[in-house]
Amino acid sequence: MHWPDRILVREVGPRDGLQNEKKILPPEIKISMIRQLAAAGITAIEATSFVHPRAVPQLSDAEAVLEGIGGPGAGVSVSALVGNVRGVQRALAMLHTPLAEIVVVVSASEAHNRANVKRTVAESLAEVREICRLAAGQLKVRGAVATAFGCPYQGGIGAGEVARVVEGMLKEGIGEIVLADTAGMGNPRQVYDLLREIRERYPGVTWGLHLHDTRGRGLANAVAGLQAGVQVLESSVGGLGGCPFIPGAAGNIATGDLVSMLHDMGIETGIDLRRVLQCTQFMEETLGRRLPARVRL
Amino acid sequence: MHWPDRILVREVGPRDGLQNEKKILPPEIKISMIRQLAAAGITAIEATSFVHPRAVPQLSDAEAVLEGIGGPGAGVSVSALVGNVRGVQRALAMLHTPLAEIVVVVSASEAHNRANVKRTVAESLAEVREICRLAAGQLKVRGAVATAFGCPYQGGIGAGEVARVVEGMLKEGIGEIVLADTAGMGNPRQVYDLLREIRERYPGVTWGLHLHDTRGRGLANAVAGLQAGVQVLESSVGGLGGCPFIPGAAGNIATGDLVSMLHDMGIETGIDLRRVLQCTQFMEETLGRRLPARVRL
Repeated sequence: MHWPDRILVREVGPRDGLQNEKKILPPEIKISMIRQLAAAGITAIEATSFVHPRAVPQLSDAEAVLEGIGGPGAGVSVSALVGNVRGVQRALAMLHTPLAEIVVVVSASEAHNRANVKRTVAESLAEVREICRLAAGQLKVRGAVATAFGCPYQGGIGAGEVARVVEGMLKEGIGEIVLADTAGMGNPRQVYDLLREIRERYPGVTWGLHLHDTRGRGLANAVAGLQAGVQVLESSVGGLGGCPFIPGAAGNIATGDLVSMLHDMGIETGIDLRRVLQCTQFMEETLGRRLPARVRL
Repeated sequence: MHWPDRILVREVGPRDGLQNEKKILPPEIKISMIRQLAAAGITAIEATSFVHPRAVPQLSDAEAVLEGIGGPGAGVSVSALVGNVRGVQRALAMLHTPLAEIVVVVSASEAHNRANVKRTVAESLAEVREICRLAAGQLKVRGAVATAFGCPYQGGIGAGEVARVVEGMLKEGIGEIVLADTAGMGNPRQVYDLLREIRERYPGVTWGLHLHDTRGRGLANAVAGLQAGVQVLESSVGGLGGCPFIPGAAGNIATGDLVSMLHDMGIETGIDLRRVLQCTQFMEETLGRRLPARVRL
Protein backbone atom coordinates (compact mmCIF):
# COMPACT_ATOMS: atom_id res chain seq x y z
CA MET A 1 0.00 0.00 0.00
CA HIS A 2 1.48 3.32 -1.05
CA TRP A 3 0.72 6.48 0.91
CA PRO A 4 1.79 10.02 0.12
CA ASP A 5 4.24 11.75 2.51
CA ARG A 6 2.24 14.95 2.41
CA ILE A 7 -1.16 16.20 1.30
CA LEU A 8 -2.76 19.61 0.88
CA VAL A 9 -5.82 20.12 3.09
CA ARG A 10 -8.00 22.97 1.84
CA GLU A 11 -10.35 24.56 4.36
CA VAL A 12 -13.81 25.27 2.92
CA GLY A 13 -15.57 26.05 6.21
CA PRO A 14 -15.86 29.81 5.64
CA ARG A 15 -17.65 29.13 2.33
CA ASP A 16 -19.34 25.71 2.14
CA GLY A 17 -19.46 25.36 5.91
CA LEU A 18 -21.24 28.64 6.55
CA GLN A 19 -23.37 29.10 3.43
CA ASN A 20 -26.39 27.26 4.91
CA GLU A 21 -26.23 28.89 8.35
CA LYS A 22 -29.50 30.71 8.91
CA LYS A 23 -28.06 33.06 11.53
CA ILE A 24 -26.11 35.68 9.56
CA LEU A 25 -22.66 36.12 11.09
CA PRO A 26 -20.92 39.51 10.89
CA PRO A 27 -17.82 39.67 8.65
CA GLU A 28 -15.64 40.12 11.77
CA ILE A 29 -16.44 36.55 12.86
CA LYS A 30 -15.55 35.16 9.42
CA ILE A 31 -12.35 37.20 9.33
CA SER A 32 -11.38 35.89 12.76
CA MET A 33 -12.20 32.32 11.65
CA ILE A 34 -10.06 32.62 8.51
CA ARG A 35 -7.17 34.14 10.46
CA GLN A 36 -7.32 31.39 13.06
CA LEU A 37 -7.28 28.74 10.33
CA ALA A 38 -4.35 30.39 8.55
CA ALA A 39 -2.52 30.68 11.88
CA ALA A 40 -3.09 26.93 12.33
CA GLY A 41 -0.96 26.38 9.25
CA ILE A 42 -3.73 25.84 6.69
CA THR A 43 -2.33 27.14 3.40
CA ALA A 44 -5.44 26.90 1.21
CA ILE A 45 -8.68 28.53 2.32
CA GLU A 46 -11.91 28.94 0.36
CA ALA A 47 -13.00 32.15 2.03
CA THR A 48 -16.35 33.13 0.50
CA SER A 49 -18.60 33.13 -2.58
CA PHE A 50 -19.40 35.73 -5.21
CA VAL A 51 -22.97 34.67 -5.82
CA HIS A 52 -26.22 36.59 -5.68
CA PRO A 53 -26.92 37.76 -2.10
CA ARG A 54 -30.49 36.45 -2.39
CA ALA A 55 -29.19 32.96 -3.20
CA VAL A 56 -26.71 32.85 -0.30
CA PRO A 57 -27.40 35.70 2.14
CA GLN A 58 -24.76 34.45 4.57
CA LEU A 59 -21.98 35.22 2.06
CA SER A 60 -23.24 38.58 0.82
CA ASP A 61 -20.35 40.17 2.73
CA ALA A 62 -17.71 38.59 0.45
CA GLU A 63 -15.95 41.91 -0.20
CA ALA A 64 -15.85 42.87 3.47
CA VAL A 65 -14.40 39.49 4.42
CA LEU A 66 -11.66 39.62 1.76
CA GLU A 67 -10.83 43.21 2.66
CA GLY A 68 -10.69 42.28 6.33
CA ILE A 69 -8.41 39.26 6.32
CA GLY A 70 -5.44 41.43 5.33
CA GLY A 71 -2.34 39.33 4.75
CA PRO A 72 -3.41 35.99 6.24
CA GLY A 73 0.19 34.76 6.23
CA ALA A 74 2.83 34.04 3.65
CA GLY A 75 2.00 31.21 1.31
CA VAL A 76 -1.72 31.10 2.15
CA SER A 77 -3.82 30.71 -0.99
CA VAL A 78 -7.20 32.41 -0.59
CA SER A 79 -9.97 31.46 -3.01
CA ALA A 80 -13.62 32.31 -3.55
CA LEU A 81 -16.43 30.59 -5.40
CA VAL A 82 -17.76 32.43 -8.43
CA GLY A 83 -21.24 31.72 -9.75
CA ASN A 84 -21.29 33.65 -13.01
CA VAL A 85 -19.81 36.55 -14.99
CA ARG A 86 -21.12 39.06 -12.46
CA GLY A 87 -19.27 37.08 -9.78
CA VAL A 88 -15.95 37.16 -11.62
CA GLN A 89 -16.35 40.90 -12.06
CA ARG A 90 -16.76 41.26 -8.29
CA ALA A 91 -13.74 39.01 -7.76
CA LEU A 92 -11.62 41.06 -10.17
CA ALA A 93 -12.38 44.14 -8.07
CA MET A 94 -10.69 42.37 -5.14
CA LEU A 95 -7.19 42.02 -6.58
CA HIS A 96 -5.84 44.30 -3.81
CA THR A 97 -6.91 41.67 -1.22
CA PRO A 98 -5.28 38.22 -0.70
CA LEU A 99 -7.76 36.68 -3.17
CA ALA A 100 -5.68 34.73 -5.68
CA GLU A 101 -7.98 32.07 -7.04
CA ILE A 102 -11.63 31.58 -7.99
CA VAL A 103 -13.63 28.36 -8.09
CA VAL A 104 -16.17 27.48 -10.77
CA VAL A 105 -18.65 24.70 -10.07
CA VAL A 106 -20.51 22.59 -12.62
CA SER A 107 -22.55 19.50 -11.74
CA ALA A 108 -21.95 16.16 -13.39
CA SER A 109 -25.71 15.71 -13.02
CA GLU A 110 -28.00 17.66 -15.38
CA ALA A 111 -30.80 17.49 -12.82
CA HIS A 112 -28.67 18.87 -9.99
CA ASN A 113 -27.11 21.55 -12.17
CA ARG A 114 -30.56 22.71 -13.17
CA ALA A 115 -31.79 22.70 -9.56
CA ASN A 116 -28.64 24.46 -8.36
CA VAL A 117 -28.12 27.18 -10.98
CA LYS A 118 -31.09 26.83 -13.37
CA ARG A 119 -28.82 26.07 -16.32
CA THR A 120 -27.95 23.01 -18.38
CA VAL A 121 -24.47 21.57 -17.98
CA ALA A 122 -23.61 22.89 -21.44
CA GLU A 123 -24.75 26.39 -20.45
CA SER A 124 -22.68 26.22 -17.26
CA LEU A 125 -19.62 25.14 -19.25
CA ALA A 126 -20.14 28.10 -21.59
CA GLU A 127 -20.24 30.34 -18.50
CA VAL A 128 -16.98 28.73 -17.30
CA ARG A 129 -15.39 29.67 -20.63
CA GLU A 130 -16.45 33.27 -20.17
CA ILE A 131 -15.30 33.35 -16.54
CA CYS A 132 -11.89 31.93 -17.51
CA ARG A 133 -11.54 34.49 -20.29
CA LEU A 134 -12.23 37.34 -17.87
CA ALA A 135 -9.99 35.97 -15.11
CA ALA A 136 -7.06 35.14 -17.41
CA GLY A 137 -3.76 36.47 -16.14
CA GLN A 138 -5.37 37.97 -13.04
CA LEU A 139 -6.91 35.15 -10.99
CA LYS A 140 -6.17 31.43 -11.07
CA VAL A 141 -9.29 29.36 -11.81
CA ARG A 142 -10.00 26.05 -10.10
CA GLY A 143 -12.78 23.73 -11.22
CA ALA A 144 -15.17 21.71 -9.08
CA VAL A 145 -17.42 18.94 -10.37
CA ALA A 146 -20.49 18.75 -8.13
CA THR A 147 -22.42 15.47 -7.59
CA ALA A 148 -19.47 13.55 -9.09
CA PHE A 149 -20.32 10.47 -7.00
CA GLY A 150 -24.10 10.53 -7.03
CA CYS A 151 -27.02 12.90 -7.32
CA PRO A 152 -30.08 13.01 -5.05
CA TYR A 153 -32.30 13.83 -8.06
CA GLN A 154 -30.77 11.61 -10.67
CA GLY A 155 -29.14 8.76 -8.70
CA GLY A 156 -25.98 7.20 -10.06
CA ILE A 157 -23.46 9.28 -11.99
CA GLY A 158 -21.31 7.69 -14.67
CA ALA A 159 -17.63 8.40 -15.35
CA GLY A 160 -18.74 9.80 -18.72
CA GLU A 161 -20.83 12.53 -17.07
CA VAL A 162 -17.87 13.51 -14.89
CA ALA A 163 -15.49 13.40 -17.86
CA ARG A 164 -17.72 15.73 -19.87
CA VAL A 165 -17.43 18.44 -17.21
CA VAL A 166 -13.71 17.77 -16.67
CA GLU A 167 -13.04 18.12 -20.40
CA GLY A 168 -15.02 21.34 -20.58
CA MET A 169 -12.91 22.75 -17.77
CA LEU A 170 -9.55 21.52 -19.08
CA LYS A 171 -10.31 23.10 -22.46
CA GLU A 172 -10.40 26.48 -20.71
CA GLY A 173 -6.94 25.93 -19.23
CA ILE A 174 -8.04 24.98 -15.72
CA GLY A 175 -5.23 23.04 -14.02
CA GLU A 176 -6.86 21.85 -10.78
CA ILE A 177 -10.15 20.02 -10.56
CA VAL A 178 -11.95 18.98 -7.39
CA LEU A 179 -14.42 16.10 -7.57
CA ALA A 180 -17.19 16.83 -5.09
CA ASP A 181 -19.37 14.28 -3.31
CA THR A 182 -21.99 16.95 -2.81
CA ALA A 183 -24.65 14.66 -1.35
CA GLY A 184 -22.30 12.30 0.52
CA MET A 185 -23.47 9.38 -1.63
CA GLY A 186 -20.06 8.12 -2.72
CA ASN A 187 -18.36 5.01 -1.40
CA PRO A 188 -14.65 4.19 -1.15
CA ARG A 189 -14.62 1.70 -4.01
CA GLN A 190 -16.28 4.21 -6.32
CA VAL A 191 -14.03 7.07 -5.21
CA TYR A 192 -10.95 4.96 -5.85
CA ASP A 193 -12.14 3.69 -9.23
CA LEU A 194 -13.37 7.03 -10.56
CA LEU A 195 -10.25 8.90 -9.47
CA ARG A 196 -7.96 6.28 -10.99
CA GLU A 197 -9.84 6.33 -14.26
CA ILE A 198 -10.04 10.13 -14.49
CA ARG A 199 -6.41 10.62 -13.45
CA GLU A 200 -5.23 8.21 -16.10
CA ARG A 201 -7.41 9.78 -18.76
CA TYR A 202 -6.30 13.35 -18.03
CA PRO A 203 -2.68 13.40 -16.88
CA GLY A 204 -1.01 16.55 -15.61
CA VAL A 205 -4.06 17.80 -13.71
CA THR A 206 -4.03 18.46 -9.95
CA TRP A 207 -6.92 16.44 -8.47
CA GLY A 208 -8.84 17.23 -5.33
CA LEU A 209 -11.71 15.64 -3.40
CA HIS A 210 -14.49 17.54 -1.67
CA LEU A 211 -16.35 15.24 0.70
CA HIS A 212 -19.53 15.39 2.72
CA ASP A 213 -20.10 13.04 5.62
CA THR A 214 -23.83 12.45 5.18
CA ARG A 215 -23.55 8.68 5.57
CA GLY A 216 -20.51 8.67 7.85
CA ARG A 217 -18.16 7.56 5.06
CA GLY A 218 -16.36 10.84 4.54
CA LEU A 219 -13.02 9.78 5.99
CA ALA A 220 -13.24 6.36 4.33
CA ASN A 221 -13.71 8.14 1.01
CA ALA A 222 -10.76 10.44 1.80
CA VAL A 223 -8.53 7.40 2.39
CA ALA A 224 -9.71 5.85 -0.89
CA GLY A 225 -8.82 9.15 -2.56
CA LEU A 226 -5.32 9.08 -1.08
CA GLN A 227 -4.85 5.56 -2.38
CA ALA A 228 -5.92 6.70 -5.83
CA GLY A 229 -3.39 9.56 -5.77
CA VAL A 230 -5.51 12.58 -4.95
CA GLN A 231 -3.41 15.66 -4.10
CA VAL A 232 -5.92 17.88 -2.30
CA LEU A 233 -8.57 17.07 0.32
CA GLU A 234 -11.20 19.63 1.22
CA SER A 235 -12.73 19.81 4.69
CA SER A 236 -14.51 22.22 6.95
CA VAL A 237 -13.62 23.19 10.52
CA GLY A 238 -15.86 21.33 12.98
CA GLY A 239 -17.63 19.55 10.13
CA LEU A 240 -19.70 22.68 9.50
CA GLY A 241 -22.07 22.63 6.59
CA GLY A 242 -24.96 20.54 7.76
CA CYS A 243 -28.45 21.79 8.27
CA PRO A 244 -28.39 23.30 11.77
CA PHE A 245 -31.79 21.80 12.55
CA ILE A 246 -31.01 18.17 11.68
CA PRO A 247 -28.41 16.69 14.02
CA GLY A 248 -25.65 14.85 12.20
CA ALA A 249 -26.78 15.94 8.71
CA ALA A 250 -24.68 16.49 5.67
CA GLY A 251 -21.71 18.66 6.71
CA ASN A 252 -18.27 18.48 5.13
CA ILE A 253 -15.74 16.13 6.68
CA ALA A 254 -14.32 17.90 9.74
CA THR A 255 -10.86 19.42 9.32
CA GLY A 256 -9.75 18.27 12.78
CA ASP A 257 -10.92 14.68 12.21
CA LEU A 258 -9.17 14.60 8.83
CA VAL A 259 -5.91 16.16 10.03
CA SER A 260 -5.80 13.94 13.11
CA MET A 261 -6.22 10.82 10.97
CA LEU A 262 -3.66 11.94 8.37
CA HIS A 263 -1.05 12.71 11.03
CA ASP A 264 -1.64 9.36 12.74
CA MET A 265 -1.09 7.76 9.32
CA GLY A 266 2.25 9.54 9.00
CA ILE A 267 0.98 11.90 6.29
CA GLU A 268 2.12 15.48 6.82
CA THR A 269 -0.20 18.47 6.38
CA GLY A 270 1.78 21.25 8.05
CA ILE A 271 -1.32 21.95 10.15
CA ASP A 272 -1.36 22.42 13.92
CA LEU A 273 -4.25 20.18 15.01
CA ARG A 274 -4.61 21.90 18.39
CA ARG A 275 -5.24 25.25 16.77
CA VAL A 276 -7.81 23.74 14.41
CA LEU A 277 -9.62 22.33 17.45
CA GLN A 278 -9.48 25.74 19.15
CA CYS A 279 -11.12 27.23 16.06
CA THR A 280 -13.73 24.43 16.18
CA GLN A 281 -14.53 25.51 19.73
CA PHE A 282 -14.69 29.15 18.63
CA MET A 283 -17.21 28.26 15.92
CA GLU A 284 -19.29 26.21 18.36
CA GLU A 285 -19.41 29.15 20.77
CA THR A 286 -20.26 31.48 17.88
CA LEU A 287 -23.08 29.30 16.57
CA GLY A 288 -24.26 28.15 19.98
CA ARG A 289 -24.35 24.48 19.13
CA ARG A 290 -22.19 21.39 19.01
CA LEU A 291 -20.66 20.67 15.59
CA PRO A 292 -20.31 17.12 14.20
CA ALA A 293 -16.50 16.92 14.59
CA ARG A 294 -15.38 13.89 16.63
CA VAL A 295 -11.81 14.90 17.52
CA ARG A 296 -11.93 17.61 20.19
CA LEU A 297 -9.70 19.56 22.55
CA MET B 1 -7.76 -2.79 -5.82
CA HIS B 2 -9.22 -6.12 -4.76
CA TRP B 3 -12.50 -6.27 -2.86
CA PRO B 4 -14.23 -9.34 -1.44
CA ASP B 5 -17.59 -10.37 -2.90
CA ARG B 6 -19.02 -10.99 0.53
CA ILE B 7 -18.20 -10.31 4.17
CA LEU B 8 -19.61 -11.51 7.49
CA VAL B 9 -21.00 -8.68 9.63
CA ARG B 10 -21.30 -9.68 13.28
CA GLU B 11 -23.72 -7.70 15.41
CA VAL B 12 -22.32 -6.89 18.86
CA GLY B 13 -24.98 -4.37 19.90
CA PRO B 14 -26.75 -6.60 22.44
CA ARG B 15 -23.41 -7.10 24.23
CA ASP B 16 -20.86 -4.32 23.60
CA GLY B 17 -23.55 -1.87 22.60
CA LEU B 18 -25.65 -2.25 25.72
CA GLN B 19 -23.08 -3.01 28.40
CA ASN B 20 -22.55 0.67 29.29
CA GLU B 21 -26.20 1.64 29.33
CA LYS B 22 -27.02 2.92 32.81
CA LYS B 23 -30.76 2.28 32.44
CA ILE B 24 -31.19 -1.47 32.93
CA LEU B 25 -33.33 -2.88 30.13
CA PRO B 26 -35.57 -5.89 30.76
CA PRO B 27 -34.56 -9.13 28.99
CA GLU B 28 -37.68 -8.86 26.78
CA ILE B 29 -36.23 -5.79 25.08
CA LYS B 30 -32.93 -7.54 24.40
CA ILE B 31 -34.73 -10.62 23.13
CA SER B 32 -36.78 -8.47 20.77
CA MET B 33 -33.64 -6.66 19.61
CA ILE B 34 -31.83 -9.93 18.87
CA ARG B 35 -34.83 -11.36 17.06
CA GLN B 36 -35.17 -8.22 14.93
CA LEU B 37 -31.47 -8.38 14.01
CA ALA B 38 -31.68 -12.07 13.13
CA ALA B 39 -34.80 -11.38 11.07
CA ALA B 40 -32.79 -8.70 9.22
CA GLY B 41 -30.50 -11.47 8.00
CA ILE B 42 -27.64 -11.00 10.45
CA THR B 43 -26.14 -14.45 10.91
CA ALA B 44 -23.68 -13.75 13.73
CA ILE B 45 -24.86 -12.09 16.92
CA GLU B 46 -22.93 -11.53 20.15
CA ALA B 47 -25.92 -11.69 22.45
CA THR B 48 -24.64 -11.12 25.99
CA SER B 49 -21.81 -11.58 28.51
CA PHE B 50 -21.15 -14.06 31.27
CA VAL B 51 -19.32 -11.70 33.59
CA HIS B 52 -19.91 -10.75 37.22
CA PRO B 53 -23.24 -8.91 37.56
CA ARG B 54 -21.52 -6.21 39.63
CA ALA B 55 -19.06 -5.54 36.80
CA VAL B 56 -21.75 -5.27 34.09
CA PRO B 57 -25.20 -5.03 35.71
CA GLN B 58 -26.86 -4.50 32.33
CA LEU B 59 -25.95 -8.03 31.22
CA SER B 60 -26.74 -9.87 34.46
CA ASP B 61 -29.76 -11.36 32.67
CA ALA B 62 -27.59 -13.37 30.25
CA GLU B 63 -29.43 -16.63 30.98
CA ALA B 64 -32.89 -15.09 30.56
CA VAL B 65 -31.88 -13.54 27.23
CA LEU B 66 -30.45 -16.77 25.83
CA GLU B 67 -33.47 -18.75 27.05
CA GLY B 68 -35.79 -16.18 25.51
CA ILE B 69 -34.45 -15.88 21.99
CA GLY B 70 -35.57 -19.42 21.16
CA GLY B 71 -34.46 -20.43 17.69
CA PRO B 72 -33.43 -17.07 16.23
CA GLY B 73 -33.40 -18.52 12.74
CA ALA B 74 -31.51 -21.22 10.88
CA GLY B 75 -27.83 -20.49 10.43
CA VAL B 76 -27.65 -17.73 13.05
CA SER B 77 -24.57 -18.11 15.23
CA VAL B 78 -25.21 -16.80 18.74
CA SER B 79 -22.22 -16.04 20.93
CA ALA B 80 -21.57 -14.64 24.41
CA LEU B 81 -18.53 -13.09 26.03
CA VAL B 82 -17.04 -15.07 28.88
CA GLY B 83 -14.87 -13.36 31.50
CA ASN B 84 -13.48 -16.30 33.45
CA VAL B 85 -13.98 -19.92 34.50
CA ARG B 86 -17.18 -19.06 36.35
CA GLY B 87 -18.44 -17.52 33.09
CA VAL B 88 -17.75 -20.60 31.02
CA GLN B 89 -19.55 -22.70 33.62
CA ARG B 90 -22.60 -20.47 33.21
CA ALA B 91 -22.28 -20.72 29.42
CA LEU B 92 -22.08 -24.52 29.57
CA ALA B 93 -25.38 -24.57 31.44
CA MET B 94 -26.94 -22.90 28.36
CA LEU B 95 -26.33 -25.61 25.79
CA HIS B 96 -30.10 -26.07 25.39
CA THR B 97 -30.32 -22.48 24.04
CA PRO B 98 -28.98 -21.24 20.64
CA LEU B 99 -25.65 -20.34 22.31
CA ALA B 100 -22.96 -21.96 20.15
CA GLU B 101 -19.85 -19.90 20.73
CA ILE B 102 -18.09 -18.01 23.51
CA VAL B 103 -15.67 -15.09 23.21
CA VAL B 104 -12.56 -14.64 25.34
CA VAL B 105 -10.94 -11.20 25.48
CA VAL B 106 -7.33 -10.39 26.34
CA SER B 107 -5.76 -6.94 25.89
CA ALA B 108 -2.60 -6.40 23.90
CA SER B 109 -1.88 -3.68 26.48
CA GLU B 110 -0.77 -4.77 29.98
CA ALA B 111 -2.11 -1.51 31.41
CA HIS B 112 -5.56 -1.90 29.85
CA ASN B 113 -5.78 -5.58 30.73
CA ARG B 114 -5.02 -4.73 34.33
CA ALA B 115 -7.61 -1.93 34.37
CA ASN B 116 -10.18 -4.12 32.62
CA VAL B 117 -9.86 -7.44 34.46
CA LYS B 118 -7.22 -6.83 37.19
CA ARG B 119 -4.91 -9.45 35.72
CA THR B 120 -1.65 -9.47 33.78
CA VAL B 121 -1.80 -10.52 30.14
CA ALA B 122 -0.06 -13.78 31.09
CA GLU B 123 -2.69 -14.46 33.76
CA SER B 124 -5.48 -13.78 31.27
CA LEU B 125 -3.90 -16.15 28.75
CA ALA B 126 -3.73 -18.84 31.46
CA GLU B 127 -7.47 -18.24 32.07
CA VAL B 128 -8.09 -18.60 28.31
CA ARG B 129 -6.39 -21.99 28.45
CA GLU B 130 -8.66 -23.12 31.26
CA ILE B 131 -11.77 -21.74 29.50
CA CYS B 132 -10.84 -23.55 26.27
CA ARG B 133 -10.28 -26.77 28.19
CA LEU B 134 -13.73 -26.54 29.78
CA ALA B 135 -15.51 -25.55 26.56
CA ALA B 136 -13.81 -28.17 24.36
CA GLY B 137 -16.27 -30.15 22.27
CA GLN B 138 -19.26 -28.19 23.61
CA LEU B 139 -18.85 -24.53 22.65
CA LYS B 140 -16.71 -22.98 19.96
CA VAL B 141 -14.27 -20.38 21.35
CA ARG B 142 -13.47 -17.12 19.55
CA GLY B 143 -10.65 -14.84 20.66
CA ALA B 144 -10.62 -11.04 20.80
CA VAL B 145 -7.50 -8.91 21.25
CA ALA B 146 -8.52 -5.67 22.97
CA THR B 147 -6.60 -2.39 22.43
CA ALA B 148 -4.86 -3.98 19.41
CA PHE B 149 -4.47 -0.55 17.75
CA GLY B 150 -3.70 1.67 20.73
CA CYS B 151 -4.29 1.98 24.45
CA PRO B 152 -5.38 5.14 26.28
CA TYR B 153 -3.18 4.20 29.27
CA GLN B 154 -0.14 2.94 27.44
CA GLY B 155 -0.28 4.68 24.04
CA GLY B 156 1.03 2.85 21.01
CA ILE B 157 0.74 -0.92 20.74
CA GLY B 158 3.34 -2.90 18.81
CA ALA B 159 2.68 -5.85 16.55
CA GLY B 160 4.69 -7.93 19.07
CA GLU B 161 2.19 -7.21 21.84
CA VAL B 162 -0.68 -8.26 19.57
CA ALA B 163 1.21 -11.35 18.40
CA ARG B 164 1.82 -12.44 21.97
CA VAL B 165 -1.92 -12.60 22.67
CA VAL B 166 -2.69 -14.13 19.26
CA GLU B 167 -0.13 -16.88 19.87
CA GLY B 168 -1.51 -17.59 23.32
CA MET B 169 -4.97 -18.00 21.79
CA LEU B 170 -3.87 -20.09 18.80
CA LYS B 171 -2.04 -22.46 21.16
CA GLU B 172 -5.41 -23.27 22.73
CA GLY B 173 -6.92 -24.19 19.37
CA ILE B 174 -8.84 -20.96 18.80
CA GLY B 175 -9.58 -20.58 15.06
CA GLU B 176 -11.05 -17.08 14.83
CA ILE B 177 -9.48 -13.96 16.30
CA VAL B 178 -10.95 -10.48 16.30
CA LEU B 179 -8.59 -7.52 16.58
CA ALA B 180 -10.38 -4.81 18.55
CA ASP B 181 -9.79 -1.09 18.31
CA THR B 182 -11.24 -0.71 21.78
CA ALA B 183 -10.47 3.00 22.13
CA GLY B 184 -10.97 3.97 18.48
CA MET B 185 -7.32 5.04 18.25
CA GLY B 186 -6.42 3.08 15.12
CA ASN B 187 -5.96 4.55 11.67
CA PRO B 188 -6.42 2.94 8.25
CA ARG B 189 -2.72 2.63 7.48
CA GLN B 190 -2.07 0.90 10.80
CA VAL B 191 -5.11 -1.38 10.46
CA TYR B 192 -3.96 -2.43 6.99
CA ASP B 193 -0.34 -2.98 8.01
CA LEU B 194 -1.07 -4.86 11.23
CA LEU B 195 -3.66 -7.13 9.63
CA ARG B 196 -1.37 -7.93 6.70
CA GLU B 197 1.52 -8.73 9.00
CA ILE B 198 -0.54 -10.83 11.42
CA ARG B 199 -2.37 -12.69 8.63
CA GLU B 200 0.90 -13.59 6.97
CA ARG B 201 2.46 -14.69 10.24
CA TYR B 202 -0.47 -16.90 11.27
CA PRO B 203 -2.12 -18.42 8.21
CA GLY B 204 -5.33 -20.44 8.41
CA VAL B 205 -6.93 -18.20 11.04
CA THR B 206 -10.26 -16.40 10.48
CA TRP B 207 -9.62 -12.70 11.19
CA GLY B 208 -12.13 -10.15 12.37
CA LEU B 209 -12.09 -6.45 13.18
CA HIS B 210 -14.00 -4.84 16.03
CA LEU B 211 -14.08 -1.09 15.54
CA HIS B 212 -15.09 1.89 17.63
CA ASP B 213 -15.84 5.21 16.01
CA THR B 214 -14.36 7.51 18.66
CA ARG B 215 -12.48 9.66 16.16
CA GLY B 216 -14.87 9.16 13.24
CA ARG B 217 -12.53 6.77 11.43
CA GLY B 218 -14.45 3.58 12.06
CA LEU B 219 -15.63 3.02 8.50
CA ALA B 220 -12.24 4.10 7.09
CA ASN B 221 -10.65 1.44 9.30
CA ALA B 222 -13.21 -1.12 8.15
CA VAL B 223 -12.32 -0.42 4.51
CA ALA B 224 -8.60 -0.78 5.31
CA GLY B 225 -9.45 -4.09 6.96
CA LEU B 226 -11.28 -5.28 3.84
CA GLN B 227 -8.26 -4.36 1.74
CA ALA B 228 -6.05 -6.38 4.08
CA GLY B 229 -8.30 -9.43 3.76
CA VAL B 230 -10.33 -9.36 6.97
CA GLN B 231 -13.24 -11.82 6.91
CA VAL B 232 -15.46 -10.51 9.72
CA LEU B 233 -16.47 -6.96 10.67
CA GLU B 234 -18.16 -6.29 13.98
CA SER B 235 -20.64 -3.46 14.42
CA SER B 236 -23.47 -2.44 16.67
CA VAL B 237 -27.00 -1.42 15.71
CA GLY B 238 -27.31 2.38 15.80
CA GLY B 239 -23.66 2.74 16.83
CA LEU B 240 -24.54 1.82 20.42
CA GLY B 241 -21.72 1.23 22.85
CA GLY B 242 -18.45 2.27 24.38
CA CYS B 243 -15.96 0.78 26.83
CA PRO B 244 -16.73 1.28 30.54
CA PHE B 245 -13.02 1.36 31.37
CA ILE B 246 -11.97 3.88 28.74
CA PRO B 247 -13.02 7.46 29.40
CA GLY B 248 -14.66 9.11 26.40
CA ALA B 249 -14.63 6.00 24.20
CA ALA B 250 -17.49 6.21 21.73
CA GLY B 251 -19.68 3.49 20.37
CA ASN B 252 -19.03 0.77 17.84
CA ILE B 253 -19.38 1.53 14.16
CA ALA B 254 -23.10 1.47 13.34
CA THR B 255 -24.39 -1.67 11.63
CA GLY B 256 -26.62 0.31 9.26
CA ASP B 257 -23.80 2.68 8.23
CA LEU B 258 -21.49 -0.29 7.62
CA VAL B 259 -24.02 -2.40 5.71
CA SER B 260 -25.10 0.56 3.59
CA MET B 261 -21.49 1.29 2.63
CA LEU B 262 -20.68 -2.36 1.91
CA HIS B 263 -23.73 -2.81 -0.30
CA ASP B 264 -22.93 0.39 -2.21
CA MET B 265 -19.43 -1.02 -2.73
CA GLY B 266 -20.93 -4.19 -4.21
CA ILE B 267 -19.96 -6.31 -1.20
CA GLU B 268 -22.73 -8.65 -0.13
CA THR B 269 -23.71 -9.20 3.50
CA GLY B 270 -27.07 -10.96 3.18
CA ILE B 271 -28.48 -8.26 5.47
CA ASP B 272 -31.68 -6.30 4.88
CA LEU B 273 -30.60 -2.70 5.56
CA ARG B 274 -34.16 -1.47 6.03
CA ARG B 275 -34.80 -3.91 8.87
CA VAL B 276 -31.53 -2.91 10.55
CA LEU B 277 -32.68 0.72 10.40
CA GLN B 278 -36.05 -0.27 11.86
CA CYS B 279 -34.22 -1.92 14.76
CA THR B 280 -32.10 1.26 15.15
CA GLN B 281 -35.34 3.20 15.52
CA PHE B 282 -36.64 0.64 18.03
CA MET B 283 -33.47 1.06 20.12
CA GLU B 284 -33.72 4.85 19.98
CA GLU B 285 -37.31 4.69 21.19
CA THR B 286 -36.31 2.22 23.90
CA LEU B 287 -33.40 4.32 25.16
CA GLY B 288 -35.13 7.65 24.61
CA ARG B 289 -32.24 9.24 22.77
CA ARG B 290 -30.72 9.60 19.33
CA LEU B 291 -27.95 7.11 18.52
CA PRO B 292 -24.83 8.04 16.50
CA ALA B 293 -25.82 6.13 13.32
CA ARG B 294 -25.85 8.33 10.20
CA VAL B 295 -27.86 6.18 7.79
CA ARG B 296 -31.53 6.32 8.80
CA LEU B 297 -34.98 5.28 7.64
